This record gives sequence, structure tokens and C-alpha cells, in this order.
Amino acid sequence: MNDIDIEKLQGIANQLRIHSIEETTAAGSGHPTSCCSAADVVAALFFGHMRYNPKDPRYYNNDRFVLSKGHAAPLLYAAWAETGLFPTSDLLKLRTLNSDLEGHPTPRLPFVDVATGSLGQGLSVAVGMALCARLDKLDYRTYVLMGDGEIAEGAVWEAASLAGINKLNNLVAIVDVNRLGQSEATAFGHHLDVYAKRFASFGWRVEEIDGHDMDEILEVLAAVGLGEQPLVILAKTLKGAGISFIQDKDGWHGKPLNKEEAARAIAELQPRAKTGTDVQIPAPSQLPAPNNTAPASYPPLTYKLGDSVATREAYGNGLLRIGTVDPRVVALDGDTKNSTYADKFFKKFPERSVECFIAEQNIVGVATGFGARGKAPFGSTFATFFTRAADQIRVAGISQANINLVGSHVGVSIGEDGPSQMALEDIALMRAIAGSKVLYPADAVAAEKLLEEMAKQKGIHFLRTSRPKTPVIYNNDEKFPFGGAKVLRQNAGDKVTVVGAGVTLYEALKAADTLKAEGIGITVIDAYSIKPLGADVIRAAAQKTNNTVVTVEDHYAEGGIGDAVAGELSVDGIKVHKLAVRELPHSGKPEELLAKYGIDAAAIVKKVKSL
Amino acid sequence: MNDIDIEKLQGIANQLRIHSIEETTAAGSGHPTSCCSAADVVAALFFGHMRYNPKDPRYYNNDRFVLSKGHAAPLLYAAWAETGLFPTSDLLKLRTLNSDLEGHPTPRLPFVDVATGSLGQGLSVAVGMALCARLDKLDYRTYVLMGDGEIAEGAVWEAASLAGINKLNNLVAIVDVNRLGQSEATAFGHHLDVYAKRFASFGWRVEEIDGHDMDEILEVLAAVGLGEQPLVILAKTLKGAGISFIQDKDGWHGKPLNKEEAARAIAELQPRAKTGTDVQIPAPSQLPAPNNTAPASYPPLTYKLGDSVATREAYGNGLLRIGTVDPRVVALDGDTKNSTYADKFFKKFPERSVECFIAEQNIVGVATGFGARGKAPFGSTFATFFTRAADQIRVAGISQANINLVGSHVGVSIGEDGPSQMALEDIALMRAIAGSKVLYPADAVAAEKLLEEMAKQKGIHFLRTSRPKTPVIYNNDEKFPFGGAKVLRQNAGDKVTVVGAGVTLYEALKAADTLKAEGIGITVIDAYSIKPLGADVIRAAAQKTNNTVVTVEDHYAEGGIGDAVAGELSVDGIKVHKLAVRELPHSGKPEELLAKYGIDAAAIVKKVKSL
Repeated sequence: MNDIDIEKLQGIANQLRIHSIEETTAAGSGHPTSCCSAADVVAALFFGHMRYNPKDPRYYNNDRFVLSKGHAAPLLYAAWAETGLFPTSDLLKLRTLNSDLEGHPTPRLPFVDVATGSLGQGLSVAVGMALCARLDKLDYRTYVLMGDGEIAEGAVWEAASLAGINKLNNLVAIVDVNRLGQSEATAFGHHLDVYAKRFASFGWRVEEIDGHDMDEILEVLAAVGLGEQPLVILAKTLKGAGISFIQDKDGWHGKPLNKEEAARAIAELQPRAKTGTDVQIPAPSQLPAPNNTAPASYPPLTYKLGDSVATREAYGNGLLRIGTVDPRVVALDGDTKNSTYADKFFKKFPERSVECFIAEQNIVGVATGFGARGKAPFGSTFATFFTRAADQIRVAGISQANINLVGSHVGVSIGEDGPSQMALEDIALMRAIAGSKVLYPADAVAAEKLLEEMAKQKGIHFLRTSRPKTPVIYNNDEKFPFGGAKVLRQNAGDKVTVVGAGVTLYEALKAADTLKAEGIGITVIDAYSIKPLGADVIRAAAQKTNNTVVTVEDHYAEGGIGDAVAGELSVDGIKVHKLAVRELPHSGKPEELLAKYGIDAAAIVKKVKSL
Repeated sequence: MNDIDIEKLQGIANQLRIHSIEETTAAGSGHPTSCCSAADVVAALFFGHMRYNPKDPRYYNNDRFVLSKGHAAPLLYAAWAETGLFPTSDLLKLRTLNSDLEGHPTPRLPFVDVATGSLGQGLSVAVGMALCARLDKLDYRTYVLMGDGEIAEGAVWEAASLAGINKLNNLVAIVDVNRLGQSEATAFGHHLDVYAKRFASFGWRVEEIDGHDMDEILEVLAAVGLGEQPLVILAKTLKGAGISFIQDKDGWHGKPLNKEEAARAIAELQPRAKTGTDVQIPAPSQLPAPNNTAPASYPPLTYKLGDSVATREAYGNGLLRIGTVDPRVVALDGDTKNSTYADKFFKKFPERSVECFIAEQNIVGVATGFGARGKAPFGSTFATFFTRAADQIRVAGISQANINLVGSHVGVSIGEDGPSQMALEDIALMRAIAGSKVLYPADAVAAEKLLEEMAKQKGIHFLRTSRPKTPVIYNNDEKFPFGGAKVLRQNAGDKVTVVGAGVTLYEALKAADTLKAEGIGITVIDAYSIKPLGADVIRAAAQKTNNTVVTVEDHYAEGGIGDAVAGELSVDGIKVHKLAVRELPHSGKPEELLAKYGIDAAAIVKKVKSL
């Protein structure tokens, strides 16, 4: 960029402001003032700095831009319209049902990698993208625009720390310090020094600028990539900048201008506005495309029936087996890799492994970034600690992200560590994520086969693994499609269908033996796929057992397997009796706890007899 | 403390180490090395610094101690045993089903205010306690012991920032920098300067010490409370300190010593160990007890039938009405108070209001701290942003905490802002919290009456409020007990029972009118209490309508009202047809979205006719 025309960029910034005002006034809602504060920075990035192919927003070596302050969506849409990607007239369809120019950005749009709008999540995703660029030996850079208000989110500092540790000098954060939050001023107003000290202490290079001074903006952008640290640009701005009667005033958050105000604002801006459509955007460099191709198949399994293997260890085995032949596999963990067994992969493939330390929001955010760049990321920690990242997982659902989460140490069967370490709510949480798959293997074969499906398919997949060792009960060539279920015991005249999963499947099998000795038959089903549920298999079995089902799960009674089965099958007149953990559990031995909370073989026997 | 005996405190530290080793060796699991690193600091705090009544751990002006690194529970138990609260012989019952000395601390123990074990949560709770001390004009101090590994959690920085902003000089954090995490060394090892810069930039006074030098420990503790800032003490320690053959070695996280190793370690420590039972612990100062008494009643409501009031606004009205006469009420919000209407209370009672800024983990953590000190905290934000604090809410369940969470802007009925702002998973999440109550009012009267119950009762209460205005349909003296449900329409010969809540209740009423005109009767129920569910009311109604129920909810199909009803009533042979949001929604007008996702009156009519 030898010939940057400052006046042109200033003009484009004003054009983006005009679009933002028009869009939100037409919609009758939205955040024009949050757009105006960032307009100069966005104009500089899109029309004077970033290297990308505007006709192909998903090109693999385009610079990436993440709008962490997602409520400034109208500004983002305006920028892309001004590149010529779509007609500027489309902007007036903002927030309508028939346009993908939604209230906050979603990847329904080709130029949006990940959904934003839940504040403070963009930086972590950007860290994932920046790590991915390094892995793929690509020179694209990742830019993330944040608001000053969202800096209060802890997730920002998890990401900032990891970026500093990894010396991501291909990552640039810009903070639009416009001083005003939604309901009051931020805690630090225009005191950029507060933010500067914080980012510096987290390992970042810091630049402070006037966010409305195009010279200053371009000067700091020209120095992007220097040094070994990630760069944060703290831009002092005014909310509503460019609109004389609104800028820097309280009470204008999330409020469109009425038609008269809009006309007055546009009259102020129009004389200094210029189009961006004639700007020649610099092309990204030509580098080899990353290898994101799945192999035709994975190496076979070698378990023997009766082997005693915890499903969490099978995860470690499987990740290594699959990752050895699948270059898309990336592993992430939060300082639990010796418990989740992710360390098997970490040791063999350190370049494709990311230690996120004890920061679970980062595991999910960084994984989302890798997924958005074509990888098959597998994040692992104790299942209950994924609850720490529940909002990132929710937003991954909105992003239609490609992430695999593997949570170990589920339920009371972990034993002595006590309730803080027991996942008893994870099924409920993960089922309620848009488009998610929830999987719960009982043995090592099921775990590894499900892992293969997770790697092959795109989407949000959650695998629930257990701490105790369990015997291998499936042959190595057994298939485990999503949405299936396995009938393990079934005889004519069975009284009840018992649905178990994970450790409770073995309790159901034990109960079947006990009951058989007393002349009572039960059908036993392994519900390894909780969402989608193997409903057809369970229904068919139930219809042969007096329409009576007992579910037994190492999870709370709410939102888990019992609710899933009842929620789908009650319409068929099937009665679902739930055995589940119904009170806050205590520390103890696994078998003591299964008994105390009524989910062991004895509890199943008792329930079946009572029906 | 004029006569602090350094050697005595060193001896007590060693006694605590011996206990920690013995406890975990007896249990066969646990984290002795994480106890040993912090033993000197804990000995100094409990036997040479803190002011408290060891016979009455809950006394209102005792100094508070939060063990954020909850896996060091054996150390905490040892300290309290050495104060004489319970026999040291009880320590050997660690982690057994019959002892409340669990793997991680829970408030089943009288000296534990809040459960810990999910790392990085203690500081936020401690901020709440420190704010509460200030509100109650008490001079107790709050001490929180953290590990260095957990500093990676974003929640720590949310709390650190809020403590700095509020200049909580009655709050002291100690970081046990023992360098070693669970699976590898931390990112910063013994570089205390990294942590020092971070805390300083977040507004803290920082002291760096050798965490095994009793002189240094006591010296910095002597200066607690000086200045206007919260104090963090960075203690450089060795994991397993005091055990020559283990200390500072990798591979010893979460691993008890075997009997031989334990004997060897104890032999090293015993000669330098001293009991703490003879130490005179300084008493807290005598100050008036805080007024934490609920009033006999609350002022009456003054709505008129047909008034159009959003339930979120009713929350604002109710909080102000209740809080005016109930001194226990404290309000917290995350820069959404003008949308949640918490600002009505904030303006009138600033001294009982905490702006947490955009940091939802803080809302829940700080509220938990207030609740632990006898207040009735009400935290509010958009319901879906409470998902950001899902793990704090989970742990509040383990803490049997007393917190009220009010989430606004639920479901697709918020309209144009799009999916990132829509709570569609919150019912699933909140139902799966141990001991929680989940409430969903349809009108302003229900909202305010439920608020009264929330204030009166202890526990974790979640109130789900809506963005659109809805007509008042209940009289001001209507009662809304937890676990109830209201039958709004019912006639002999009704075909189906339709269960709605919130905005969908009005759709059900509209559908009833439409169907009535066609000669089809339906029973309409308001399921304002989702957990506990008004199951008896719904069952009785369903049994009069061919055992057929249609649920309709502005929430995803998983884990919500439909699953709750089916999960409880399928055993009675009741068929539950769920109308719920079954795909990732889009931006649009509320009424368009209710129609598109099949939860409006037309969808109910269609479903009822199809049955």
C-alpha cells in the first residue's frame, strides 16, 4: 500500500456511518452509535490494510476479521457491501426474516466465520485462527474488534493470556474504547492506560491511538506483525462519532435514530462521504492450501472382548489412532490431559496440540477458531468443567461450528472427589445446544467408533466418557451411527425395557442376570446416542414390554436420558420410569454412590419388580 | 498479636502437613502436595493472624476464609481440627461416605461458606463477602487462597477487576505459586513478576513473598487493610514442601503417598511439628449484628386486569417494592439494568446495588457471596447470558447457596436481535442444578408474587422474564406457590390439555378461542412453576382430556417444559406432544418468529386438530 489516500479512507468511514444509520433506522432497532465509534478503524482495515479477496470471503489465506462486538453488525455489513460483495441496497433489509443480515452476525453470511453477540468471545476464537495460520504455514492475519465494555468478560483475559504465551504476532486486537456501556459509562472511561497496563501484563504489545485519526490508525497498522507479541490497538473513540448531536452522549446505546434524526445525521456526514467500491483491495499472498482432507478410513481397532478399559482412556487411544492419519485433528485440553488421556496425542503431535491451561472457555473458543479454518478440533477436560464454557458452546451452536468436545469423569461414578468434579448436568446442557450431537459410550469400542464419526462429520459433538474401567462388550467391527441404540438383551415375554448408557449399562446387565434367576426377563438397551436418540429402537423394544421403560443414568433427573426418552416416546403411550441422581451427591466410593443414589443394579431390580 | 511465636507457627504448619498426608493416605486419594505448599500460609492465617471464634465458625463478624483451590481440602480440615472444632481423629474419615470431610469442601461443614473445587471461583464469592462486610458495617476481612494454576481462569480476572474498582481493602487474596499444575508446569512457573504485573494492572496492591518464610508471611499479613486497594500476596512455594523426596517434583499432583512414603515423610516432619490446639485465637470485634430479618409482609400490588406490562418490567417494580421493606435485598446486574429494569432498585438503593459490568460470572459469584452472608441477592441480566455463569450456578447448587437469578429476554419472542440474545437453553440448564427452582411468570402479578416467594425462601431460584408486554390476567391477591400451576380454561369434554408459560400462555388462550369457535374445547394451563412442576394440576387436567397434553414453549425442545411434563407424567400414561423451537432461529419480528418456529396460536390449533 504505497498510495494510501487518507481522505478517501475518512470518506469511506463516513459512508459506513451513513449505511449504519440507514440500516438501523429502517429496521427500527439496532446499535448505530456503536457502529459510528468504530467506523474509522473498520474503514482502515477493510479498505487500507487487510489483504483478502473480497469476492471469495472464505479463501484460505484471506486475513480474518472477527467482530467480537457483534452489535456493531450494521457496520460490518456496510463494509462488505462497500467491497462490492453484495448490493448496498440489501443493507436496508437488516434484521428482517428474509435477510441474513441479522441483528448480530452469524455464519449464515459467507464473510462471518463465527457468530458473535455474546460479548467477550471473539478474542478466544481469534486465538484459535491465529494458531491455525501458524500450523498451516499461512501468512494471513487475524483481526478482532472488541468493545471496551466487553473487556470486563473473563473470557477476554483467558484468551489474552494464551495469545501472550504463544507469542501470536499474527493476531491483532483492536479495542473500540468509546467509554459508554449500555446502562452507564464503563468503569474506566477514556483511561486507556488502564487497558494498556492490563494487556501489557498479559504479554501483548500495546499501541494507544485516537480511533478517529486516520493517520494514527494507519501508522499502527503498518507496524502489525513486528516483534514477537500479539498486538492490541487501544482506540480512543466517541460513541456515535460523526453525528454532532449524539456523539459521546449517554442514553444512545442500542437505539436507532428516528427518520428526522437520521436525515439530519446523514446531512452532516454526506459531504465528507466516499464510496469504497473503487478501492483495489490487496490480494493475499499465494501459498499452498492447507491439507484439510479426511483420510478414506482409519486404522482398525484391536480390543479384545472383556478387556477392561475406561472410555476416557479409549478416547486417548482413539484420538491418537485417528489423528495419526487425519491431518485435520487438533487436540486441546485444560491441564487435565493426563486424566482425559489427551496426553497420548499431545506427546506424539505437539504441533497439533494446544495446552489451554485451566481456562475452559478458551478450550471451546480456540477449538471454534480451528474448526472455522477447516480443522477437526477435539477439546477435552472433565465433563463438568465444560459447563464453565456453556455460553461458548451455546454460541458455537449459533455458529454452526465444527467442534468435538470430550468430557470425562461423569456422574457419581467418579467417587471420592465429590460433587464439584461430577458431571451431572452435562447431558441437559449439551442436548439444549442447537444442532448438537450427544454421545455416551459404554465401552472402548463404542468410544472409539463414535470418535471416528465425530471426526468425519461436521457439527458440535459431545462425547461423555467415564472414569471407571469397564469391560469391552462390542466387537471391533461393530458400527455406532449417530441416532442408533443397541439391544443387548431381549427375549419374548420380557417385562420391561431398561435403557442404560455408560456405567449404568453394566448395572442394567447385572440386573438382568439377577432378575433372570428369578424368572423375570428384561430387555436391555445401550442408548449410546442420546441426541439424536435411538428412539426407533427403544420404541420397538418398549412396545414388546408392555410399553414400559426404565431409564437409568449417572446424571441428574432433569434433562438427561430419562427426559429425552419420555420426551420422544410418551406420545406413543410409552411409560418411562426414570432412575437418576435426585439429590446433591456426596463423596464416597463409586459403588457406594451408585447404590446410595439409586442407579445401581439393585435399584433397577427393585424398580422392575415394583412395576 | 504481640507475641507471635514464629517457631510455633512453623510447627503448626508441619502438623497440618502431617495431617494432610495422613488423611489422603488413609483415603487412598487426594492432593497432599497441594496442601503442603500452602501449609505455612494457612498456619499463619488460622493461628497467627485471622480473628474469629473457632467454636462458632458462622459468627457474623468472624474473618472469612475461602479455599478457592478446593483440592487442598485436607489442609483446611486439618486447620479446623487443630483449632479444636472437631477431633483430629475425624480427619482420617476423609472422602468417606459417612463423613462430611469430602474430597472438596462443601457447606455441609459449618466452617465452609461455599463449595469450591471448580477452580477460579473463590475470588468472586470473596468479593461478594467483602462488599457485604462494607454494607453491614462489619470489620471482618475476607481471605481467599488460590492456586497459581487457577489464575488462568477468566473468572479470576472478572473478580479482580471488580475488587479493584470497588477498592476492597478488606479483601486479601493469597496465590500459592507452587509452579506445578496437574499435567505440566504452569505457564509462568515461579515468575511471580508476571502475576504481580497482572494484579497491579487490575487495581490491587501486590506483595511478593517466600511462602515458606514465616517471617515474611506475617510481615505482609500485618499490613493487611492498609491503603485503599485489595491486597494480593504472591507466595512462592514448592509443591509438596517439607517432604524432601517429593517437593517441587513433577508427577505428584492429586496423588496420595503410599504408607511407606507417608511414614518417611512424617518422620521428616514430626520433629518440627507442633499442635495448634493451645493457641489463643484473637476474637473478632464486637459490632452490631446486621439486620438480615425479612419483613412480615410486602406492600400490596396495584396492577389492573388488562394492564400491559412486560414481566421484565414487573421484575423491576417488584424488586423495588420488596427491597424497600426487606433490608436483605441486594441487586446485581451486568450493564443491562435498563433492559432488565433492575435500574429501578439501583437508583433508589445504590448502597445495596452492585454493577458487575459485562461479567456474568461475577454476577453469580458475588451474589453467592452475599447470600452466604445472609442477604437475599437478586442478580439480573439477559437470561441467555446467565449461561456464561453456568458453572458458577452449578457450584451454587453444591453450595446450597441462597441466590435469586432473574433472566430477561427469553426465547424467539425477543425478535430482531437474533439468536445470540435469545435464551432457548436456560430452562434445561437451570432445571439441572441441584435444588434449583425454575419459575416462568406470564404476567406482572405472577412475576411479582413469585419474586416475593424467592425473597422469602432460601435456595437457588431462577425467574425467567420476557421482553414483550403481556396483559395482566391475574388479580393482585392471586397466590403463586412454588410447584403450582393455574388452570385458566377448562370445560367438560375438552379434547386436549395445553400447557403454556410466559408468552406462549397467551398463544394457548388465543388458540382456545379459535378452537372454541369451531366447537373444540381445550384446557389451558399456566405452568408458571417449571421446577418443581405443578404435576398434580397437569395430571388431573390431562386425565380429563384423553390423557393428552400439548406443551408449547419459547425454548428449545430439549430439557424444557415439554421434557419436564413428559418426564413426570409419562408414567401415568399421559401423552405429551411438544411444541418448541426445533432449529436455530433467525432475526425477525416476534410474531413472525413465534409462527415460523411453530409455537404460536396457529401452531397450537393445528396440533390440537391433528390429535
